[in-house]
Amino acid sequence: MKHEVDLKNFSLHTDLLIDEVENIEEDIITKENRKINNVEIDVIKVKEDNLVKRKGTYTTISFEDITDFKNFNIVEKIFIDELNKIINEQNLNKDYKVLVIGLGNRNSTPDSLGVKVCDNILVTRHIDRLDNLGEDYHSVAAFTPNVMGNTGLDAQDIIKGILTETKFDLLIIVDALASSKIERVNKTIQLTDTGIYPGSGVGNHRKEISKNTMEIPVIAIGVPTVVDAVTIVSDTINLLIKKIEYLKNNNPKEKLKAKDKINYLKEERVNISNEEKNHLLGLIGELNDQELKSFISEILTPIGYNMMVTPKEIDFIIEKLSLLISKGINKSIHNLKDKI
Amino acid sequence: MKHEVDLKNFSLHTDLLIDEVENIEEDIITKENRKINNVEIDVIKVKEDNLVKRKGTYTTISFEDITDFKNFNIVEKIFIDELNKIINEQNLNKDYKVLVIGLGNRNSTPDSLGVKVCDNILVTRHIDRLDNLGEDYHSVAAFTPNVMGNTGLDAQDIIKGILTETKFDLLIIVDALASSKIERVNKTIQLTDTGIYPGSGVGNHRKEISKNTMEIPVIAIGVPTVVDAVTIVSDTINLLIKKIEYLKNNNPKEKLKAKDKINYLKEERVNISNEEKNHLLGLIGELNDQELKSFISEILTPIGYNMMVTPKEIDFIIEKLSLLISKGINKSIHNLKDKI
Amino acid sequence: MKHEVDLKNFSLHTDLLIDEVENIEEDIITKENRKINNVEIDVIKVKEDNLVKRKGTYTTISFEDITDFKNFNIVEKIFIDELNKIINEQNLNKDYKVLVIGLGNRNSTPDSLGVKVCDNILVTRHIDRLDNLGEDYHSVAAFTPNVMGNTGLDAQDIIKGILTETKFDLLIIVDALASSKIERVNKTIQLTDTGIYPGSGVGNHRKEISKNTMEIPVIAIGVPTVVDAVTIVSDTINLLIKKIEYLKNNNPKEKLKAKDKINYLKEERVNISNEEKNHLLGLIGELNDQELKSFISEILTPIGYNMMVTPKEIDFIIEKLSLLISKGINKSIHNLKDKI
Amino acid sequence: MKHEVDLKNFSLHTDLLIDEVENIEEDIITKENRKINNVEIDVIKVKEDNLVKRKGTYTTISFEDITDFKNFNIVEKIFIDELNKIINEQNLNKDYKVLVIGLGNRNSTPDSLGVKVCDNILVTRHIDRLDNLGEDYHSVAAFTPNVMGNTGLDAQDIIKGILTETKFDLLIIVDALASSKIERVNKTIQLTDTGIYPGSGVGNHRKEISKNTMEIPVIAIGVPTVVDAVTIVSDTINLLIKKIEYLKNNNPKEKLKAKDKINYLKEERVNISNEEKNHLLGLIGELNDQELKSFISEILTPIGYNMMVTPKEIDFIIEKLSLLISKGINKSIHNLKDKI
Repeated sequence: MKHEVDLKNFSLHTDLLIDEVENIEEDIITKENRKINNVEIDVIKVKEDNLVKRKGTYTTISFEDITDFKNFNIVEKIFIDELNKIINEQNLNKDYKVLVIGLGNRNSTPDSLGVKVCDNILVTRHIDRLDNLGEDYHSVAAFTPNVMGNTGLDAQDIIKGILTETKFDLLIIVDALASSKIERVNKTIQLTDTGIYPGSGVGNHRKEISKNTMEIPVIAIGVPTVVDAVTIVSDTINLLIKKIEYLKNNNPKEKLKAKDKINYLKEERVNISNEEKNHLLGLIGELNDQELKSFISEILTPIGYNMMVTPKEIDFIIEKLSLLISKGINKSIHNLKDKI
Repeated sequence: MKHEVDLKNFSLHTDLLIDEVENIEEDIITKENRKINNVEIDVIKVKEDNLVKRKGTYTTISFEDITDFKNFNIVEKIFIDELNKIINEQNLNKDYKVLVIGLGNRNSTPDSLGVKVCDNILVTRHIDRLDNLGEDYHSVAAFTPNVMGNTGLDAQDIIKGILTETKFDLLIIVDALASSKIERVNKTIQLTDTGIYPGSGVGNHRKEISKNTMEIPVIAIGVPTVVDAVTIVSDTINLLIKKIEYLKNNNPKEKLKAKDKINYLKEERVNISNEEKNHLLGLIGELNDQELKSFISEILTPIGYNMMVTPKEIDFIIEKLSLLISKGINKSIHNLKDKI
Repeated sequence: MKHEVDLKNFSLHTDLLIDEVENIEEDIITKENRKINNVEIDVIKVKEDNLVKRKGTYTTISFEDITDFKNFNIVEKIFIDELNKIINEQNLNKDYKVLVIGLGNRNSTPDSLGVKVCDNILVTRHIDRLDNLGEDYHSVAAFTPNVMGNTGLDAQDIIKGILTETKFDLLIIVDALASSKIERVNKTIQLTDTGIYPGSGVGNHRKEISKNTMEIPVIAIGVPTVVDAVTIVSDTINLLIKKIEYLKNNNPKEKLKAKDKINYLKEERVNISNEEKNHLLGLIGELNDQELKSFISEILTPIGYNMMVTPKEIDFIIEKLSLLISKGINKSIHNLKDKI
Repeated sequence: MKHEVDLKNFSLHTDLLIDEVENIEEDIITKENRKINNVEIDVIKVKEDNLVKRKGTYTTISFEDITDFKNFNIVEKIFIDELNKIINEQNLNKDYKVLVIGLGNRNSTPDSLGVKVCDNILVTRHIDRLDNLGEDYHSVAAFTPNVMGNTGLDAQDIIKGILTETKFDLLIIVDALASSKIERVNKTIQLTDTGIYPGSGVGNHRKEISKNTMEIPVIAIGVPTVVDAVTIVSDTINLLIKKIEYLKNNNPKEKLKAKDKINYLKEERVNISNEEKNHLLGLIGELNDQELKSFISEILTPIGYNMMVTPKEIDFIIEKLSLLISKGINKSIHNLKDKI
């Protein structure tokens, strides 16, 4: 009986700014892009609240397969650096106290990221109260409010309740997200100091977890772990254009490479005309991105085929991602050096 | 690093009244004892606060192996009856709202009872807010605050915090206990409306979870799942006396029975004298219960041998006990009849 | 280090006949189709080995959301009936002995179906050896060989090894499959007495688990739990045609219904011409099914986007599916009547 | 229904030689004892089969709390050294192939040691078949046969079956044991090349897992994780004597130390006479070890109080022990140096 309820209440919360940034007027953002060993870092600062996103810093780290040992180590280092930067921007006291919140559902693999991060947070608050922790450690607590389908309670109410009973200076929230691009699934970490705004934010003020509602700085760490079928199809149609553009480019050196090993996204391409698109894809080729997604949604949704999906290796990936984020948080907050 | 902390913070909270009742003055308690199919039910009402226990009702259900299918069903039925009686004594409104709290640690089998009960509570509060649940259901939420070693937070603070943000009329708390008798381990359920008083209660007021601190009625459901080595040894020495008393009794009919199949606790015995005790057990035989326990503790504790232990089948037993209690709570609160 | 290996060795084994049946010459198969309460049952008998599938019975049960309590019960009943029919066709002795094998990986949710079925099989072989089980029970053992990425061993070698040491009369193998249609994911159970042929069967004879290799009848029970991105895209393009065909049909009664609630697959449609297809979809519209899949694969595979995916609710669905199949096997083999 | 069966089939297999060595005639054994940082290493070689134990090497490593980080590292190093020595004594080919077997039950914490060790074994056999592993690696497979209560199958039959289908040169078996002394519970690892002899070995030849039955060398690694109540009581009575002996010793320096912090087992003691024992303990004081155990068993067993128990922190301890043993096996077999 319980699981029927669970299925209805399965919720993935926030979104990636990086995929919406083109919808924000240029003059209210600053952008910065770097690359370290194939890992891309985008830092976007939104200078004032707008229709798409709140004012604040959004850092996006984009990487390849995280179950690869080398990738893991590079991304971990970058994650620590970027988290440190955002923490430093919050102007906290030297001995700030942190509450780490892991949103999501332990019993649903793609939604369990936050819970599993909390399993490995180095918790010190209870020791701090007895003893002096020493200069290398901050006071840290970690908590998983679970999902409403399991508890009947809003995560937001529980967090707010804890903050009324105990004093903290910084909230770090970890959550699984829904992705709006295939390529980002399990391959992107977003850090932001704007907090979490569930749903489309339509007047749903009390569910917001942010400095506004919690009265202390809130840093949200999110990884997209699911994507919907509409996105898979629309991304594929866009990729089809790019593939054709690549094939039209006469690069004899490339032609020598094994045909299906080439990542055509990274190769030179020549643009194809609208006529060519129409020839190739008919009316479909004439739709813009938003129209294409709406159209595909109209096909899949009424018959129940617009599933949210996750890669079949999700168990192994969540294990690595949660380890990376928990180690990163521990090393950012405490001065662990060679201790772990 | 985390687990060293865990080991230190492993805590089993409350105690059984039934084992201390002899220490309470007779005139402030009433007792009632019934037996249904080998299951014993003791209802003790303490009329005023005293040194040992708080004023309130303590119901103890004592049974044999709960992994036996027949036992399970008998105990489940009795548990529902007794829980209903205690709920009815709280004078709640007809449409009372319940918060079920599962104390303890999911990662420690003998301390996971409360958490596993919550896994199976029929949660309705989030549905109630959208819809009318109908007359058969109450609004129920369920929550597991985890232990301080994992979170850095007091369970009591979290519960208090939730109650400041959301309104409930009744708190039901489920917890694993430490036993003071071998025979009670995994074979007793205690229900009480006095709440939970961790530790020896020495002025530790803010950790108390009771009507006093929570401002709504609190029903605590506890099962002893661990026992210490001191108890095992002192219980054995007391049993030795009883065994000798049984052997001294000349009951020829019994002598015919297979020697080691006889439960001598249930057979007639003749008392043995103090001289005989001393002959048998030396100075040990002259100690009273409390002296014996102190003496054994002095032997085991300094060398680290006074372990808290649990039967090796604890995983299977916790599974059954948590199922029994969760089904019992669901059927007591909601009118499920044949629906589950 | 282990998980990198795991990812490479994640394997889903067999396929559904029902989706390939059109590729088999008509004269070597018999088909039967029934419908009970929205659950469809297809029984296909292949009369002789052919390029696509082996000789034998293939029963496919197709249903909607299995986490729905009513659906669950209907499908369970049908599954028991169909499994009984296939068992009866094997001409076993009255006191036949069964080995149930759960293929797959406990640590990978979409591949854990077989393992979780085994967790709930009513195992009796060890009791049978001590006692007479009585007429209502058969001798049953259950075993999970795990996957090669975890063990370094072929599941097939382990099973063969067990059969050399212990005698059984029937092998029942449960496994998660890859689907070739979106609509089948977690919504189809296939039962077949032809066993399991991993990979494309290209001369990989020793990995086959069938009557040929095991020398006793082998019944395979499979549920598709994953699907690849290529299938999602090609199915969507085919659905697009059907949606257009539905929209072209002038059915005024339908037009009155809420636009996106209509399951247009179940409504009347008019065929659209090839010209219309081309107008709509360009060159894409001219491809046949196989060409379309190849084409999409060429787009997605080189850039690593042809993920195998599973619905995000997979944890809850596997729980229900494994419960259904284990209960069904228990009730088919033993005469449990009202005992469970 | 299943768990009732489980409880009956919960089985812990072998025993520690170290506790029985006094029962073996002196001239057929050699003993060696070393101590490294508070960790004790006893190597006993039994030169010929005898009533108590088989011919072979028995190495016992005794240590304190393994959840302590420092202890863990010291014991890990010693374990690797001792395992290497026993492997070297087997005269294997340079490119020997290993099968690691984890006995026990994943669902029962104190019996899950072997299973959890297998979860972390670096498995290479499936890679070896495709590629050359290189000089640093041996071909390793790992397997968990589960317990008869879950599978209906003898672990021994499954292992024998695997060995008929695939070739290995060495079997390493990991198992949880029952302890015959409180002090050894979770604080001793035994390594032996004599294999495993379940039960009292009374003619139960086919269940033996040894070089005799498996035809390749068998190294068994065992840790006692449970102890029975009889042992706890009889050990306590023996400790009582030692405590009195310590108290009788007039060592003024010791008297200055805090009373209950002294480990009196490690301090000087004076023997007390039999009269004193009798004065202290009555008839009980006159029993020898075996008589005392029998007597206590007669008290506890008929009333069902002779439970096998395990410390309440068993979940955390098994986690550490299984990690230590799996890392030790990996580093002993492969040449991992700094790779892990």
